[in-house]
Amino acid sequence: MKAIEWLGDRVKVLDQTKLPIKEAYLELSRYQDIASAILELKIRGAPAIGVAVGYGLALGALKIKTGTPDNFRRELKAVSRALAATRPTARNLFRALERMERVAEKGEDVERIKQALINEAIAIHNEEAEATLKLSKLGAELLKDGSTILTHCNTGPLATAGYGTALGVIRQAFEHGKKLKVFATETRPLLQGARITAWELKQLKIPFTLITDSMAGYFMSKGEVDCVIVGADRIALNGDTANKLGTYTLAVLAKEHAIPFYVAAPLTTIDPALASGDEIPIEQRSPDEVTHIQGVAIAPAGIEAANPAFDVTPNKYITAIITEGGIIREPYGEGIKKYFREVIT
Amino acid sequence: MKAIEWLGDRVKVLDQTKLPIKEAYLELSRYQDIASAILELKIRGAPAIGVAVGYGLALGALKIKTGTPDNFRRELKAVSRALAATRPTARNLFRALERMERVAEKGEDVERIKQALINEAIAIHNEEAEATLKLSKLGAELLKDGSTILTHCNTGPLATAGYGTALGVIRQAFEHGKKLKVFATETRPLLQGARITAWELKQLKIPFTLITDSMAGYFMSKGEVDCVIVGADRIALNGDTANKLGTYTLAVLAKEHAIPFYVAAPLTTIDPALASGDEIPIEQRSPDEVTHIQGVAIAPAGIEAANPAFDVTPNKYITAIITEGGIIREPYGEGIKKYFREVIT
Repeated sequence: MKAIEWLGDRVKVLDQTKLPIKEAYLELSRYQDIASAILELKIRGAPAIGVAVGYGLALGALKIKTGTPDNFRRELKAVSRALAATRPTARNLFRALERMERVAEKGEDVERIKQALINEAIAIHNEEAEATLKLSKLGAELLKDGSTILTHCNTGPLATAGYGTALGVIRQAFEHGKKLKVFATETRPLLQGARITAWELKQLKIPFTLITDSMAGYFMSKGEVDCVIVGADRIALNGDTANKLGTYTLAVLAKEHAIPFYVAAPLTTIDPALASGDEIPIEQRSPDEVTHIQGVAIAPAGIEAANPAFDVTPNKYITAIITEGGIIREPYGEGIKKYFREVIT
Repeated sequence: MKAIEWLGDRVKVLDQTKLPIKEAYLELSRYQDIASAILELKIRGAPAIGVAVGYGLALGALKIKTGTPDNFRRELKAVSRALAATRPTARNLFRALERMERVAEKGEDVERIKQALINEAIAIHNEEAEATLKLSKLGAELLKDGSTILTHCNTGPLATAGYGTALGVIRQAFEHGKKLKVFATETRPLLQGARITAWELKQLKIPFTLITDSMAGYFMSKGEVDCVIVGADRIALNGDTANKLGTYTLAVLAKEHAIPFYVAAPLTTIDPALASGDEIPIEQRSPDEVTHIQGVAIAPAGIEAANPAFDVTPNKYITAIITEGGIIREPYGEGIKKYFREVIT
């Protein structure tokens, strides 16, 4: 099972909205299809979105008819803008597009630029997959044998088009023989935990219990949670972390119960241009996702509902940020600058 | 619209599991039907459960054939045990049964005892309704004009078979001209907030926004919540409060953001026999309520899911407990003893 697979002139993706009921694959050959798949969360998870827009831009490039480099670049810019407009929060999306655009700037042979874009998209995919495997190995050291780990949303192979971030860390520790138990939060409104994390944990044979988001405090107060580990959508220079809505609540609860709270993310999720989490744009999604579950109304018609997709966890709640460059601890600004320079530039 | 209505030889109840899709009423004439309705949450909310078992015991009494008081009392005891076995946490249930049993102990004419039981059940209903109106009036003083109040689960007329507890306080403040806005949490797993509170707030024309349970932290961190008010299922002598799962998390979040956290409940919810919340029995319900929403699977088949129905909020997180006897503040033990003696005994 692969989240995203490049097939030469199209991309095969697992439709994450159909899980766990159906394992349905889509083959997308137009960048507009990639954009729609991201908008509709058929492709989701910050690293996977980054990989998808890389391929999306390559698909867009393949469809451009002109042989003139300037015209090609102008048309490609429109493709990039469309892909950038899908979702505002995940840093990986913008980083992948920036990287692809840098490649498009070089060369005067349109066919060669197209090939270079395909190669770059594949490279982004490979590097993101390697990064998540590497950070998972590093992070696994933090998980103690016999411990119970609470995780939120979905951060496995599907979310990353690679090995996984938070779930990758759990997976590495488990595969190295540590006895672990996982609490997976269902993650309302879109139930990525119940639908996807539960499905991945079941496949990986890692023992777990599904809980509603509101149960985390209950189990922490009973001493049944040893640490929390989550992924990230964007991390500011000071370590403030935007992640799936509900993450902040888990961080506050973890602090209250003196439980370590870890963030696991590739360096591509870090946005050193933002001084703090206050600057991270938070996507507001349709209220229908709150008032309906899988198309069924769960609330009276015509009411107001809020639907921020992410929240920001200030650095003071974060015990460590696990990246492929290393495990970063306070003061985050220094650590991020160091690892960022070493690995990314 | 009445949650529970006594019709002389049967009870008419609004089936709360069908809301907001249908306003369906049931007419129940056997105590077993009352027990099933409580088990299946067709009747729910601690005060409403108390009222329902009062009528349930009266219905059970009416069906007993014997004219011998001793036999009558023996058979009635079995009815009481069946009603007591429905749900373990709400104190109101046990208090109502104890009160009914005291009435059954008096007198030697079975027909007269039956009538006395009916009268007592009606009295319990009336007193519970009066208590919730009174505590709502007292509590309304705590809500500031122009403020935004976050509430959890459902605590209105349906939950109380009266005026409401937390929602009653909000309602009183609103009806007295205070400009209020409400955040109503959906309250997973059974969505009492999305289904019932939203329905009641809409009917009452109180402005509100439905949020998932995991959004409370987000809005508190943005400074958009001025206070939290919840109901209770059982309050120990020291003020520790069992309420719908998720309440504890809201209390921790409120403390972290220095937001007042109020509990509103009639004195019948207080259990002075329990020294602390550790002694409150917490109902564990079926995992199916977590893995399915309105009958639709939201998680892979065959996985483990937890479903504690309540959690306990320690007294240190509670700013005040609003009862019909008065507003109780720290030290709770003293306040509870005082008001309890004055009003209940």
